[in-house]
Amino acid sequence: MKRTLGVCYYPEHWPEDLWPEDAARMVEAGLSWVRIGEFAWSRLEPSPGNLQLDWLDRAIKVLGNAGLKVILGTPTATPPRWMADKHPDMFARDAGGHVRGFGSRRHYCFSHQGYRAESRRITEILAKRYGANPHVAAWQTDNEYGCHDTVLSYSDAALAGFRDWLSQKYQSPDALNRAWGNIFWSMEYASFDEIGLPNLTVTEPNPAHVMDFRRYSSDQVVAFNRDQTEILRRHTDAPLIHNYMGRVTEFDHFDVGADLDIASWDSYPLGFLEDRMEDSDAHKRSFAQQGDPDFQAFHHDLYRAVGRGRWWIMEQQPGPVNWAPVNPAPLPGMCRLWAWEAFAHGAETVCYFRWRQAPFAQEQMHAGLLRPDSVAAPALGEAADVAREIAAMPDVGTVEAKVALIFDYPSNWAWEVQPQGSAFSYFRLVFETYRTLRSLGLDIDVVAPSGVLQRHKLVLAPGVFSGAQIPDDCRVILGPRCNSKTPDFKINASPIPGVTVSHVESFRADMPRALPDGGAMIHWQEHLETTLPVHETSAIGEAVLVGGRAMYLAAWLDFEALRRVFRTQCEACGITTVDLPEGLRLRRTQTHQFVFNYGRDPVSWRGQNIAPAGVYWTEL
Amino acid sequence: MKRTLGVCYYPEHWPEDLWPEDAARMVEAGLSWVRIGEFAWSRLEPSPGNLQLDWLDRAIKVLGNAGLKVILGTPTATPPRWMADKHPDMFARDAGGHVRGFGSRRHYCFSHQGYRAESRRITEILAKRYGANPHVAAWQTDNEYGCHDTVLSYSDAALAGFRDWLSQKYQSPDALNRAWGNIFWSMEYASFDEIGLPNLTVTEPNPAHVMDFRRYSSDQVVAFNRDQTEILRRHTDAPLIHNYMGRVTEFDHFDVGADLDIASWDSYPLGFLEDRMEDSDAHKRSFAQQGDPDFQAFHHDLYRAVGRGRWWIMEQQPGPVNWAPVNPAPLPGMCRLWAWEAFAHGAETVCYFRWRQAPFAQEQMHAGLLRPDSVAAPALGEAADVAREIAAMPDVGTVEAKVALIFDYPSNWAWEVQPQGSAFSYFRLVFETYRTLRSLGLDIDVVAPSGVLQRHKLVLAPGVFSGAQIPDDCRVILGPRCNSKTPDFKINASPIPGVTVSHVESFRADMPRALPDGGAMIHWQEHLETTLPVHETSAIGEAVLVGGRAMYLAAWLDFEALRRVFRTQCEACGITTVDLPEGLRLRRTQTHQFVFNYGRDPVSWRGQNIAPAGVYWTEL
Amino acid sequence: MKRTLGVCYYPEHWPEDLWPEDAARMVEAGLSWVRIGEFAWSRLEPSPGNLQLDWLDRAIKVLGNAGLKVILGTPTATPPRWMADKHPDMFARDAGGHVRGFGSRRHYCFSHQGYRAESRRITEILAKRYGANPHVAAWQTDNEYGCHDTVLSYSDAALAGFRDWLSQKYQSPDALNRAWGNIFWSMEYASFDEIGLPNLTVTEPNPAHVMDFRRYSSDQVVAFNRDQTEILRRHTDAPLIHNYMGRVTEFDHFDVGADLDIASWDSYPLGFLEDRMEDSDAHKRSFAQQGDPDFQAFHHDLYRAVGRGRWWIMEQQPGPVNWAPVNPAPLPGMCRLWAWEAFAHGAETVCYFRWRQAPFAQEQMHAGLLRPDSVAAPALGEAADVAREIAAMPDVGTVEAKVALIFDYPSNWAWEVQPQGSAFSYFRLVFETYRTLRSLGLDIDVVAPSGVLQRHKLVLAPGVFSGAQIPDDCRVILGPRCNSKTPDFKINASPIPGVTVSHVESFRADMPRALPDGGAMIHWQEHLETTLPVHETSAIGEAVLVGGRAMYLAAWLDFEALRRVFRTQCEACGITTVDLPEGLRLRRTQTHQFVFNYGRDPVSWRGQNIAPAGVYWTEL
Ligand SMILES: [Zn+2]
Ligand SMILES: [Zn+2]
Ligand SMILES: [Zn+2]
Repeated sequence: MKRTLGVCYYPEHWPEDLWPEDAARMVEAGLSWVRIGEFAWSRLEPSPGNLQLDWLDRAIKVLGNAGLKVILGTPTATPPRWMADKHPDMFARDAGGHVRGFGSRRHYCFSHQGYRAESRRITEILAKRYGANPHVAAWQTDNEYGCHDTVLSYSDAALAGFRDWLSQKYQSPDALNRAWGNIFWSMEYASFDEIGLPNLTVTEPNPAHVMDFRRYSSDQVVAFNRDQTEILRRHTDAPLIHNYMGRVTEFDHFDVGADLDIASWDSYPLGFLEDRMEDSDAHKRSFAQQGDPDFQAFHHDLYRAVGRGRWWIMEQQPGPVNWAPVNPAPLPGMCRLWAWEAFAHGAETVCYFRWRQAPFAQEQMHAGLLRPDSVAAPALGEAADVAREIAAMPDVGTVEAKVALIFDYPSNWAWEVQPQGSAFSYFRLVFETYRTLRSLGLDIDVVAPSGVLQRHKLVLAPGVFSGAQIPDDCRVILGPRCNSKTPDFKINASPIPGVTVSHVESFRADMPRALPDGGAMIHWQEHLETTLPVHETSAIGEAVLVGGRAMYLAAWLDFEALRRVFRTQCEACGITTVDLPEGLRLRRTQTHQFVFNYGRDPVSWRGQNIAPAGVYWTEL
Repeated sequence: MKRTLGVCYYPEHWPEDLWPEDAARMVEAGLSWVRIGEFAWSRLEPSPGNLQLDWLDRAIKVLGNAGLKVILGTPTATPPRWMADKHPDMFARDAGGHVRGFGSRRHYCFSHQGYRAESRRITEILAKRYGANPHVAAWQTDNEYGCHDTVLSYSDAALAGFRDWLSQKYQSPDALNRAWGNIFWSMEYASFDEIGLPNLTVTEPNPAHVMDFRRYSSDQVVAFNRDQTEILRRHTDAPLIHNYMGRVTEFDHFDVGADLDIASWDSYPLGFLEDRMEDSDAHKRSFAQQGDPDFQAFHHDLYRAVGRGRWWIMEQQPGPVNWAPVNPAPLPGMCRLWAWEAFAHGAETVCYFRWRQAPFAQEQMHAGLLRPDSVAAPALGEAADVAREIAAMPDVGTVEAKVALIFDYPSNWAWEVQPQGSAFSYFRLVFETYRTLRSLGLDIDVVAPSGVLQRHKLVLAPGVFSGAQIPDDCRVILGPRCNSKTPDFKINASPIPGVTVSHVESFRADMPRALPDGGAMIHWQEHLETTLPVHETSAIGEAVLVGGRAMYLAAWLDFEALRRVFRTQCEACGITTVDLPEGLRLRRTQTHQFVFNYGRDPVSWRGQNIAPAGVYWTEL
Repeated sequence: MKRTLGVCYYPEHWPEDLWPEDAARMVEAGLSWVRIGEFAWSRLEPSPGNLQLDWLDRAIKVLGNAGLKVILGTPTATPPRWMADKHPDMFARDAGGHVRGFGSRRHYCFSHQGYRAESRRITEILAKRYGANPHVAAWQTDNEYGCHDTVLSYSDAALAGFRDWLSQKYQSPDALNRAWGNIFWSMEYASFDEIGLPNLTVTEPNPAHVMDFRRYSSDQVVAFNRDQTEILRRHTDAPLIHNYMGRVTEFDHFDVGADLDIASWDSYPLGFLEDRMEDSDAHKRSFAQQGDPDFQAFHHDLYRAVGRGRWWIMEQQPGPVNWAPVNPAPLPGMCRLWAWEAFAHGAETVCYFRWRQAPFAQEQMHAGLLRPDSVAAPALGEAADVAREIAAMPDVGTVEAKVALIFDYPSNWAWEVQPQGSAFSYFRLVFETYRTLRSLGLDIDVVAPSGVLQRHKLVLAPGVFSGAQIPDDCRVILGPRCNSKTPDFKINASPIPGVTVSHVESFRADMPRALPDGGAMIHWQEHLETTLPVHETSAIGEAVLVGGRAMYLAAWLDFEALRRVFRTQCEACGITTVDLPEGLRLRRTQTHQFVFNYGRDPVSWRGQNIAPAGVYWTEL
């Protein structure tokens, strides 16, 4: 399958007579796909039961006849205003108990059964009408589940659903009381109807209580999505996709992904850098117009796993966005680089968001491939360049990475529930692991705990809160803070055989604990009792890295220390590493090696001068 | 008309036998005016309908007979406790939905019709009784509209009023849907009754929705004030005044001012410096006991426009206040300097707040001209000095400034609604423009968009969100971010003829973009397509300042760059500039030039040594 | 009486067959006391009226028979879930009006009469059953009153109680209006039923209103505790104790303490350092694994006064805790040092919290003397060391300190209500006074305003808001900000005879006002008119320290300046001082001098080398 490009389009925003011209220009730019429909419910059903699908018929026809393949979105992320009259209690509530009402988007509670039925109804209507339409070549369910903190809801619907979920899980209040340790602070329940949501408590609620609520909440997203996929499957053979949002971790993407054919994600490198990364101001200055050099790649590798090999970019930043603390323009070339980086990581398709900048409403300051006056924005040319370049390249083909890094959504919830140190973020821990591996020029598979494959020679499992296994026949480094809990959220002191954690410490970010061989422990240290060989020790002789084939890493290491450990362990299992200059990144496909320059300055790499925002590839 | 001084006084706080002595001491200090009554409702009407005005009769008589002119305030900023029983829903609600109840002040929602009627009732009672009283020489409506964030209310009354306002503005939901672009995210409304207030949404509401709510909210303040002025006009010929509060921008002061005769404002230089300025700690240290050198002057020039030439200080800081993060004492001399600076900018009257420091309740730590023990505080002597000095000076007379700077309240709302970069503040942008102009020794008129006069040779219009015109026969610099929206809050790409903004960027405060001739662009840059002459370019050749008589400035410039631009443009239109040392400020009247030293050190200026807090004037 | 050690234990958390082994190990480690029961209500009364006390009988028996003395806690800090059905309105509400419900602990409103009755009922049940039990050698009421901000509640019960309290205090609304100065801003009330709680106001409420609410709220804690002590007294002769929490100041501990026999407090040095101290990052780094060198001592000296000479540590940190921003392990030796420091300050007993780390629920990451797997944690050995050491020492005996420092809870409320400068914290002011005194090697009595004794030669009274007396026959330094209010929260300008405060200033933390003899005024300066001798002046000659035997200090002084003042004044009254190196602290008992090294490095002290975490004592 050839790599392809696409774009997100809102025919309902524009006069119908503009559609053919838009379609022609898309095709001319080399785009193959067009995503439509995901926010159009108020035009598809302006009042309850009053279906108005003719315009969508025509839009699909115009686009399809121009040669484009349509991705059709179910419109459930934006129920129309009349829905609130039918279901006045359909809204989520925040942790303070305040309603999260109509007026923007994602204004529904996943637990609300009435809205769930509405979601099935509109999905069924669309699936029946367009399931066999030859132009509709893929479907998107809803839009960006979880965006704007919408997974967790403290509504009455969530309370009822949570009690029911708990009663099915535990069968008896006594079993729940034992599992949660409710004897502590007299928190025991006599019936499931006594259990509340874990908000509005005097001090922190039982972490086991919160953890189950996090699981419950994730399950509702899965169920909501499955409602739609079950209907769609009955009417279409086209692949089903959801577009996940970067660094949204409140539901288990692997669980949602299991019901879909392709994973996609929405990649906004500049917005993410400013809005959702913990890095220093100096780092953010270095990459202000390029994005973090690893943030996109991490998500590429993650969603390849979520999609079981098949993945897309559904929304690619095309210029300045409107939602970060600051919104600069990408360096010239970055809209090309980002697309090529996605393809290098195995993406089948990259869709830019959006076709034409809308001059009205919330996202009017969000760039498109066209300006509001229909003049081409800089990204359109870069997209067209990519289109020409992929034509000359072989089919999609993903390299077989030797390094696997486990990413586990419940672990993210666990450490949000109980960080034990204000800087402890699971995402950050995993991401810093990823960044360090990648600085060594490695290809990495980000995988679910169950996703380790035979080809993986080195497996990393930082921060998996519970149940991380030691795969056969590979070198594995578990830790820090791995397997430190039972599934019931109780302490487990033995992360791997031969190791007991006697106690743990979190410590000040400004008090790194230097290591004799360079670098330091930061944020977190575990104190071990072990019978295993010791590979790294602290300045006062404590075991920091222990084990044989299965190793345990007892601290959060800084970049320098972690890089040394990884370099050594890669060597030990025959994986070649390379020390990449800052800003330069490598990635291989089955056939090519790609080099990306995320820096603001040209970099010389093996005799090749690579410009800022430059992409350079060689055949393997 | 001679310049005059006055003071704010609360006869209801003190034993009646103290009144004559207080009045005599006021006269002795050279004060002409005394403001009373604006918080006294609970004494004027202790229970519903039970009017007790005799004490006020006597207070006015005592003050008037001593030779003082009375400014009488309507007491509507502090309705008594019984009002809450009559109108339990009269309170505003904050954006989280929480009631803002009784127990301090300004506890009413401008949209509440019941309270509006009460406000008219008490105003009518006072107007009838005192409208012709020879001692009542001016009236104040309410007190500091908008203080404590009281313009925006999310109450049921506001919801009902907003829907009605929208239905009058748009006539049909479809017109509103089109104007707001509600097709975006399926936000379309079928009736005005479906529209909510723009709070408690999941993510940001439609900016057009918020902008109309901001306009509606401002209109309610105007209507509330007009209720009172219409009644007062029927009973008195005395001038009507409101006392605006510094940097309160939530309602359109020009609109309120149109119904009044004189604008006044409440000037607390030290409190404002710490509480409502974005400047650096170093800057705040330099002026900790003097106040920012330009903050007062900006408001003087603004309220001269709001008052159509007639303006006062109604409350002048007399010593430490009680409400800023820190509350130091002014340097000796500042209470004189501040008054003279107001007069230099054309003030008719400066009233100090308050006569005697109250030893009880919320403001007990707020200084007065007297201490609680009736001993003179330092400011009393400074006030008396000013009184002697104004006696020797000619009448009030304002210089005819050649430079106009536009200030537009709706623009402030627009960029609060949609900053597009966290540092983007309209007030700050305009204020930094003002500060830069003033550092060149210029006299400035701050004007409404419609307020440009023929005498203005240079007009500045930074950040006017929509509809800024190019006046005839003068040099005008529009921008940055000028005319970038339609009134409906949609993108407009052509700020002036010959210029198209292709895209805009906000960027990190720690990444200024240096200009070849010195200084830098900060926070904000627009990228232009233009056929006009280019006067300033960026380091990479982008147009930064373009045009002929009408110019467009495409970036937020720092002090150095902006000063260069202004110096050049002043030269081009024959306006003389001078590079003032830091802390020194100039202002002319029709007859004199005044020099003010805001610095902590003496400054030598044209052979004259000017002490800290020094004021120096020469005849022109 | 010999000094003793103890531990907190939760038999309900562990299998019954583990109890004897636990008891034996406690005894073996040298522990004498075991505190139990304070969170066990759901096991004592699993459903309303269904009492299940047999297990507690057995637990007491097992522990007692092993040789341990039991401290039995009333379980009222954690009412079971069924209580919420009996009393749905029993919960506190936060200042925003949100309920603070079930799911953690301290979920009750002190004003709720229904819950007050439940508290008496369960106390009576336990008192009757165990009041004469020979193993129950002490009682604890509730647990950590006020922890998690639970003193202030804005519930309906609090509103009703507050109105009643006000009507008893003032007898007539007019008296209240006069006392509060409600004429200000028309806040007058016609009946007590019109008065609200001081939350949800538009801007700050009347400080007199808030101050009375603070007093009312404190009184409810006192009354709640007295409910229990009155019942317990009827059934037991054992001493009654409450365990106060560090830096909890929302209720008057002296008032609660008056109904008890022994004061105890819960000492978590590392948690407190990070969680509730204003000190710099550099200071926190220096003491990250030791705790602040004076924070514990201050509380020791405070609770000695609260307990009228008798005081304990009820909970002593044994390792990392779970609730601070970071939670490192104590340096080896600190768990010994902390205990010895308590004993040096006169503690009778130090109980570690807890025996075995619970592997479940909220505090699973809080260390114990045992790990969850029952292996000894490091603190167990240190506790055993202390047990051996105290056996060789004489009985408890407190030195007769010559210096007294007044601590007054209402003053803390007063300056929270009206700080007048964001950095002004009463606790911080008193604590910095304490720290400075202690750096001079002094033994200090922290006392209530009424607690000055004849032996005290030097008395410090910083920040007492009202009514501080000048004791006979000693040197006393009042101020800064002492006696600046009447009890009604009105300004009082004469803190001591011969001194009038003309005005006060708060100022920026980055603008210290240097003193000619070294050091500086920080945060706060009062300007005096005085007829008294002047001992310290500012750089511009203002009086900073004035008086004779009774002196007034007119500013918040930094460490250097305050140390000079104290050194001088100690000399003047014949108290010997010594300049201690940083981290080293002294304390005397009747028979010994103790030296503690809080530093990370060894310190040489009078020929003795004292290791980090070292304790060194000599006979006097
Ligand atoms: Zn709330
Ligand atoms: Zn999104
Ligand atoms: Zn606690």
